[in-house]
Amino acid sequence: MNITASYTDLYQLTMAQVYFKTKPDGRAVYDYYFRNNPFNGGYSIFTGLEDVLNILETLKFSDSDLTYLEQHGFEKSFLEYLKDFQFRGNISSSLEGDVVFPNRPILQVEANIIEAQIIETMLLNILNFQTLIATKASRIRHSAKTEMLLDMGLRRAHATGGYYASRAAIIGGFDSTSNVKAAEDYDIPSSGTMAHSFIQSYEDELQAFRDFAKIRPKNCVLLIDTYNTLRSGLPNAITVAKEMESSGEQLLGVRLDSGDLAYLAKRTRKMLDDADLNYVKIVASNQLDEYVIKSLKEQGAPIDIYGVGTNLVTGKPDAAIDGVYKLSEYNGEPRIKLSENIIKVSLPSKKQVYRMLDKNGMFYGADAVAMYDEENVARMEHSFDANKSLELTRFEHEPLLQKVMENGKKVMPARTVSEIAEYSKSRLEQLPEEYKRFQNPHIYKIGLSTDLKKERDSLVQKHKF
Amino acid sequence: MNITASYTDLYQLTMAQVYFKTKPDGRAVYDYYFRNNPFNGGYSIFTGLEDVLNILETLKFSDSDLTYLEQHGFEKSFLEYLKDFQFRGNISSSLEGDVVFPNRPILQVEANIIEAQIIETMLLNILNFQTLIATKASRIRHSAKTEMLLDMGLRRAHATGGYYASRAAIIGGFDSTSNVKAAEDYDIPSSGTMAHSFIQSYEDELQAFRDFAKIRPKNCVLLIDTYNTLRSGLPNAITVAKEMESSGEQLLGVRLDSGDLAYLAKRTRKMLDDADLNYVKIVASNQLDEYVIKSLKEQGAPIDIYGVGTNLVTGKPDAAIDGVYKLSEYNGEPRIKLSENIIKVSLPSKKQVYRMLDKNGMFYGADAVAMYDEENVARMEHSFDANKSLELTRFEHEPLLQKVMENGKKVMPARTVSEIAEYSKSRLEQLPEEYKRFQNPHIYKIGLSTDLKKERDSLVQKHKF
Repeated sequence: MNITASYTDLYQLTMAQVYFKTKPDGRAVYDYYFRNNPFNGGYSIFTGLEDVLNILETLKFSDSDLTYLEQHGFEKSFLEYLKDFQFRGNISSSLEGDVVFPNRPILQVEANIIEAQIIETMLLNILNFQTLIATKASRIRHSAKTEMLLDMGLRRAHATGGYYASRAAIIGGFDSTSNVKAAEDYDIPSSGTMAHSFIQSYEDELQAFRDFAKIRPKNCVLLIDTYNTLRSGLPNAITVAKEMESSGEQLLGVRLDSGDLAYLAKRTRKMLDDADLNYVKIVASNQLDEYVIKSLKEQGAPIDIYGVGTNLVTGKPDAAIDGVYKLSEYNGEPRIKLSENIIKVSLPSKKQVYRMLDKNGMFYGADAVAMYDEENVARMEHSFDANKSLELTRFEHEPLLQKVMENGKKVMPARTVSEIAEYSKSRLEQLPEEYKRFQNPHIYKIGLSTDLKKERDSLVQKHKF
Repeated sequence: MNITASYTDLYQLTMAQVYFKTKPDGRAVYDYYFRNNPFNGGYSIFTGLEDVLNILETLKFSDSDLTYLEQHGFEKSFLEYLKDFQFRGNISSSLEGDVVFPNRPILQVEANIIEAQIIETMLLNILNFQTLIATKASRIRHSAKTEMLLDMGLRRAHATGGYYASRAAIIGGFDSTSNVKAAEDYDIPSSGTMAHSFIQSYEDELQAFRDFAKIRPKNCVLLIDTYNTLRSGLPNAITVAKEMESSGEQLLGVRLDSGDLAYLAKRTRKMLDDADLNYVKIVASNQLDEYVIKSLKEQGAPIDIYGVGTNLVTGKPDAAIDGVYKLSEYNGEPRIKLSENIIKVSLPSKKQVYRMLDKNGMFYGADAVAMYDEENVARMEHSFDANKSLELTRFEHEPLLQKVMENGKKVMPARTVSEIAEYSKSRLEQLPEEYKRFQNPHIYKIGLSTDLKKERDSLVQKHKF
């Protein structure tokens, strides 16, 4: 499947046809944001932007898309329009890899309303998923501290979604992926060990290890749990490690993929050390996530490298982020979506988000949302408690939304995945620890500028029943 | 991203290179199966086969794949081999859409070991995910009974995995999808309604409904919760429905997307009926799954059409099926993977699976696994309880694994997605109700033929420590 402009929901095209007939020159601002951090966490890692911009620069309807739409009742004049469709709008956005929080705009699209509507589904599809996975990866990184993390999830990923999962995993803090295609296209490190079937294809495990080590002596990791970890796999691996030494090579590691990993890792480390193989690393895998790795570290399991699959690439247990794309301005007029819950009421108008920094350059604990062109935002109001506000003049603050696309062309220099990962790491270092803990993390606050709050409240009144 | 042969894990290629140098003519049999039904359910719907076979028929390494592998240390002679790589093996499989159960082969690959190894990741990636989603869809169908089900999940799907999710949803029993690209490529019905932003782009809701109904009178569904469902959205929709009547059209439905769906649906039905609009349907959406729909039905909510998104396309809460691909035979010799848990010990040799039918043609509650060429399987033994067995002579039984690919070419006539969905529906009708319930479903049993059990037990002994 190639992504063309028909990678969207049918209703986007139905609505677009109505716009085409009634308001072809309408100009809209849409906000991308989500309502909750995934995993009951205290933050999210915004990911997927570069992919979205690359797709937008070349997005078109293919001939077969147009034939399909013609057969499904779309009108000739609208099909003619779609034939020449391209996205020519502007996008301002948080930088990819930034630490972001719920209920404030992460990205804003400002474009012809037909164009902005048609791209909604693709944009949500790519950003929601990669943000989910990068956030999961960052939590696993938090548990693993400085140990190496490998993504091995492709076989359990959601079909070709696995391709994007591997990219997002690196941005969230993983070191490498087993996914060759993603490594190739995104220029990220690849790695891998061996499977049980490799060993089973031999009459005996020792011969399997010997052949593997002989042909692939560099980065050689032997899987030791096919028959019996401590009585067969590990003794055979030690034999091969010694043979490698005599030909000037070094075994990189052994992998545990079942059983009690804490117990087996300790026994394995002891047996390796007793054989003077203290350089041989221990790789562990099998249904790992941030909680299991945290527990393994707390038990003192001497694991050097963690391979993480299913729980990473599927973003378990949440499996989705509730990202939305809401109209906030139409032809220069503010727009709102109501809800019985005030926190779910959307924020009108084109906006800017400011992050407050304390005197050490750490995130202060609150973002302020203001009108886009508002100057000298001096005070930030609580979203619905009129008694609470914060003077902003005593804080350094930085605008988060930057122009990344103008008239359909990228205006930010491209960054590699590893550059984005580095940026993300540096941003996370600015986030105080209490937002990173897994249990009841601190809530990163949001405030509205006085002008924005007034505008929201007057629109709420206007639509009141 | 196009799927080429580098859509695999790096270790497959590392192992393949060792096979290439040490046993280039090795012949292997691999079993695809999983260990647990997802969602604590009593069955799974096997899905994704047609996609896998289509991919296998044309799978190749691209030039850029080969360049990447050359840069990453693979040897010249092996790269030459990869240049001409194609899958030339045989596959026997359950039919797509069949009702399947854990711990017995669903699909078997018999091929040169290098080829069989390289395709593993792609095969698992496609089958695991689509089987997960079709099974989820089938559970939602079970709750919704005969009401219409729409897949609207693309925006929350795992990037392009959403394309395959929409296909699998139809096989599991959904009626249509919002996903235009999937509808187009797989020839499945598409549908859609309208978004809040459409209404927000107008000064007033009534005008938005009027424009929409005028331009798209067929299959027109109006979204009524943007401002206030019962005081604004519904009265405006009723006005438009009456205007449509006077121009000879009929409003198809109104959609509820927030609030208490049971309460709102009842109030909406009453107001529609009071306006003589009993033909106008009620569409409901908002975080639905099989449990919410079951509850809505139990409360008597008069909902005609359910739109399901996130929980469907992400297969929440499981998000993955634990499908594996295990070597069961190498060069004609049986192979086994041990585990401390007898149920996780793999079954050796090439096999056939028989489904027992009772005298009414219903599934009897047990599948028998036998050697592939075993004739007249008369008795089925319990997998590890020596005191339990079952005479098979009194049952009709059907072999489940059929030849679907020979020498890399499909040998089954292609079926459309709707034909597969029909087949799946008919198979589910053969499954007794107690396997379909959500709470503690009956466990579908497995038995081994006497010969297979002997072979497994002797291999367990051989590898015992």
